[in-house]
Amino acid sequence: MRIVQKDFCISTKNRNELIDITSQVSSVVRQSGITNGDVIIYCPHTTAAITINENADPSVGHDILLTLEELVPHHRPGYRHSEGNADAHCKSSIIGCSKQLLIKDKSVVLGTWQGIFFCEFDGPRSRTVKIQIRGE
Amino acid sequence: MRIVQKDFCISTKNRNELIDITSQVSSVVRQSGITNGDVIIYCPHTTAAITINENADPSVGHDILLTLEELVPHHRPGYRHSEGNADAHCKSSIIGCSKQLLIKDKSVVLGTWQGIFFCEFDGPRSRTVKIQIRGE
Amino acid sequence: MRIVQKDFCISTKNRNELIDITSQVSSVVRQSGITNGDVIIYCPHTTAAITINENADPSVGHDILLTLEELVPHHRPGYRHSEGNADAHCKSSIIGCSKQLLIKDKSVVLGTWQGIFFCEFDGPRSRTVKIQIRGE
Repeated sequence: MRIVQKDFCISTKNRNELIDITSQVSSVVRQSGITNGDVIIYCPHTTAAITINENADPSVGHDILLTLEELVPHHRPGYRHSEGNADAHCKSSIIGCSKQLLIKDKSVVLGTWQGIFFCEFDGPRSRTVKIQIRGE
Repeated sequence: MRIVQKDFCISTKNRNELIDITSQVSSVVRQSGITNGDVIIYCPHTTAAITINENADPSVGHDILLTLEELVPHHRPGYRHSEGNADAHCKSSIIGCSKQLLIKDKSVVLGTWQGIFFCEFDGPRSRTVKIQIRGE
Repeated sequence: MRIVQKDFCISTKNRNELIDITSQVSSVVRQSGITNGDVIIYCPHTTAAITINENADPSVGHDILLTLEELVPHHRPGYRHSEGNADAHCKSSIIGCSKQLLIKDKSVVLGTWQGIFFCEFDGPRSRTVKIQIRGE
């Protein structure tokens, strides 16, 4: 059993944005030399998240952000957090700050249409993604 | 440390549906012979998800689907994805495509009322569930 | 590779409440003696959840609970579950009953502002949190 930990950085350009990080994660997995196991993709930020969804048609990402903005408006009567980004914190807890994927035959196991996305909800910012791979 | 990977298939019958897969997951865990560790239940589809919730009263599943349909309507002005299932992609990201459970004494650790559900949001379809068990 | 399992109990005081359990989780990780690996924080209840979010400003927790109550009202026309806590079950599936964190140099890896919260949606109650640590 081996454990490999690696971080990488991304720069986001908009307040709300989905950034496809599938190739970065796949690359870290390949370089680890691990054949079977799993990979955790962890976001150490409280106004961002990680999700798995379709990366063939960029409209899907658009529609996810649209839905989240309708459900969690930027300004809601009653918000107490004074930094003006209460909505971003709420979206982070709804989507979740980490995801876990399987590794088989030295590759990340993804469905035909699945990609891995970093979800920015309070950009633009410089962000870190933490990767941990475990396996044999 | 051993890693056991296994898939199983299910057929969904409705557009939105929660299917209790607790017995299939428990069976794969028992057959693995692993005493202590964890199990990842992974959905490789972008219009479906996995959740843990009450499986004693089927009303709970009904109320979860009702809530999701109220929050994420099938047709929302502004959706761009042309396949007519933007809502299903959004629900998948809100609920999440995988869950992780503990294994103790050769059994899946579940609370008194907890069961494992495959969440179909764009059925009916044939679906695959991927299971990975790690432990000793 | 070692696996350490430990439970702890908490008492919640309100129907909806976020309780910071970062110090309890960190303490279990330190006592495990594991240097590198991960920790699963698992809630065995169907009307509660686990989330990671800011614990510096308590307004953030307030705003998350406010948002969830706006999205998932206590009484929604159409709920079928007869115990009066259908909303709590829905919130549990939206937030998720477990989270996973990395362990590095014998400590839980958390971003600057991140803390670990037990989310009570149907309190007050006595609740159990299950911890599993894996690593070397």
